[in-house]
Amino acid sequence: MNNLELMKELSITSPSKIVMLVIDGLGGLPDSKSGKTELESARTPNLDALTAGGICGLADPVAPGITPGSGPGHLALFGYDPIICNIGRGALEAVGVDIALEPDDVAARGNFCTIDEKGIITDRRAGRISTDKCAGLCKLLDGMTLDGIKVMVYPVREHRFVVIFRGAGLGADVTESDPSRTGVAPLNISAVSPEAAKMSEVANKFAAKAKAILASQHPANMLLLRGFAKKPHFPTMQEIYKLNPLAIAVYPMYRGLARLVGMEVAKTGTTLEDEFKTLQQNYDKYDFFFLHVKWTDSSGEDGDFARKVKVLEQIDTALPILTGLKPDVLVVTGDHSTPAMLRGHSWHPVPVLICAKYCRTDAVTSFSESAFITGGLGRIQSTQIMPLAMANAQKLTKFGA
Amino acid sequence: MNNLELMKELSITSPSKIVMLVIDGLGGLPDSKSGKTELESARTPNLDALTAGGICGLADPVAPGITPGSGPGHLALFGYDPIICNIGRGALEAVGVDIALEPDDVAARGNFCTIDEKGIITDRRAGRISTDKCAGLCKLLDGMTLDGIKVMVYPVREHRFVVIFRGAGLGADVTESDPSRTGVAPLNISAVSPEAAKMSEVANKFAAKAKAILASQHPANMLLLRGFAKKPHFPTMQEIYKLNPLAIAVYPMYRGLARLVGMEVAKTGTTLEDEFKTLQQNYDKYDFFFLHVKWTDSSGEDGDFARKVKVLEQIDTALPILTGLKPDVLVVTGDHSTPAMLRGHSWHPVPVLICAKYCRTDAVTSFSESAFITGGLGRIQSTQIMPLAMANAQKLTKFGA
Repeated sequence: MNNLELMKELSITSPSKIVMLVIDGLGGLPDSKSGKTELESARTPNLDALTAGGICGLADPVAPGITPGSGPGHLALFGYDPIICNIGRGALEAVGVDIALEPDDVAARGNFCTIDEKGIITDRRAGRISTDKCAGLCKLLDGMTLDGIKVMVYPVREHRFVVIFRGAGLGADVTESDPSRTGVAPLNISAVSPEAAKMSEVANKFAAKAKAILASQHPANMLLLRGFAKKPHFPTMQEIYKLNPLAIAVYPMYRGLARLVGMEVAKTGTTLEDEFKTLQQNYDKYDFFFLHVKWTDSSGEDGDFARKVKVLEQIDTALPILTGLKPDVLVVTGDHSTPAMLRGHSWHPVPVLICAKYCRTDAVTSFSESAFITGGLGRIQSTQIMPLAMANAQKLTKFGA
Repeated sequence: MNNLELMKELSITSPSKIVMLVIDGLGGLPDSKSGKTELESARTPNLDALTAGGICGLADPVAPGITPGSGPGHLALFGYDPIICNIGRGALEAVGVDIALEPDDVAARGNFCTIDEKGIITDRRAGRISTDKCAGLCKLLDGMTLDGIKVMVYPVREHRFVVIFRGAGLGADVTESDPSRTGVAPLNISAVSPEAAKMSEVANKFAAKAKAILASQHPANMLLLRGFAKKPHFPTMQEIYKLNPLAIAVYPMYRGLARLVGMEVAKTGTTLEDEFKTLQQNYDKYDFFFLHVKWTDSSGEDGDFARKVKVLEQIDTALPILTGLKPDVLVVTGDHSTPAMLRGHSWHPVPVLICAKYCRTDAVTSFSESAFITGGLGRIQSTQIMPLAMANAQKLTKFGA
């Protein structure tokens, strides 16, 4: 019996409420000058006070040493084993731009590229055209119907876009047209399984039409397709935890990930305060809240140590709006670490704090990576956070008699 | 997807170098007088300085409570789940005396025993004859050919030896001739699967011939065979980690274990200094080094607390030769604990220290079992050490998008 099966068997409904505050890219690394991490540099009196009353530890989203992407990082937080619950690349790209995939849809990642007069790829990224330019090109390609399949094209960023093929009889098990190098022509797309025969035909027709349409659009005079995938089919958080969950997130990727596990997604604004207010406004209507804060990750990705510190302080300042609601269980954690020192996601375990009436607190009083080493949770897997939150909300019955 | 599959998917080559210093039987138990373990009694300023700058914890080679043999202990350090990656006893014995097994070979563990005039076993160990005596007897038995199968016999220690059956058509799935008790005759060996029919016939013929040859050699006037096994087929470290690994070990068992996972094995001398110099000499040619130090284990097995302390101090003194090479990642750990108090391997978790630029250090400054309890790695499985070393060497890409 895996984690989710166990939760499904033991979970019960109750009026108690769980708030999971996900501070994206939460963990960091020490600055070479100060010897302190972003969290250790930030003034966070409210988080420190929560820590003093809660139980804390460090969590590995996938496994020690593994650097998670946003998809695996969040699935783990929702209790889904990210190694088993795989999201295909095309589907994740669609999720990331807020496209609600239908069950029969196949999504593919696309990028505009440059080909020469012989059809040979000379630049796989078409000189990284602007997102605006990309949006204009997507409009030229969007909306055709090929063999009864509707083809929708949405810009993502720079030269990247996503294509949705909608209609009956499509399988996602096809090869890619992107040869992953220059000096050769785009590859023909072929079916790997018989069920994907129609998909490969439609994809090749789409590529041929696109070539004609884009001919005059140098450097973006061709496209490459890869990562064909259908929407993954995960059991919902309603089924597993018997929760009524709401997601609050500014960025589409996280709203999309929340939808994949059945969460409703709230309308919210563009700031941290907007998100906290959205939580306040919806607090009576749900019993689980996933509140996602992005800017710690983006500043970490930019290598901007000082900005990450500032975002952490802003979160701390806004926190009383959340704690004022007195949730029965408050979880504060991240989907992975994003140290400014590394300018990207990293393998380092993520601080996790659980505040609840019966959490059995530890001696830690400061919200930081090094302080959390000696926390009462020890070093856990991120998939264990949901069972702990459920237990602390008294939403789990006894296992066995 | 298991650990190794994940590593295979994520690993990339890079110029960074990893050194794994394995101090055999590293962990210990407190002396009843001083209340200090071997490590806590040893003066280890260099290891302490490394600890101050690194991240540490305690590792379970197999699982909490499980005492590992050398095979499982080392496989875990190389990242191979020792419960899945089983090495048959005969194969491990062959590995242990530096015999390179061919894929079709079957190896069996043998021991000389004493039988009475009715053929009944009176001593399963033939009075623990000397290793020299054993070597002489092995010569008497070595080199026969039975049904086209070549039979090679190598001494191990005291009454123990190893037999290699070489030739086509042998299966290892046969019963043992050792009844594991006295008062009965050696058992007939029979095939458990049809593929092992020839093996059982040859083994019985060999036992019969040996009985005749040994008749005048009382107390070693018969032999018992058990643990028939072929060489296990593990994916190599090259395949999994894309590393170019070198093993440096004085004792054949550890060279053999390293070979089973694809490592090259360096020629080295017989002392600790020889091993460290071999590392120095080969440092440019490889990107992963397994450096094995045996004497902590042997002194622990002998119950010699003071000698184990001395060996630890010798390692510490030689350490600057290693650290002077400035490896990108240095791992210091053991394959299991061997407390002198217990005169053998034990189930206690093993100290593990990782030093690297982005390791996210902890507050621990002393290289010892009790200090490592509060280390930043927490309590991990030994199979997780390689993923952590790879991550710290920045040789792993992100999992998922």
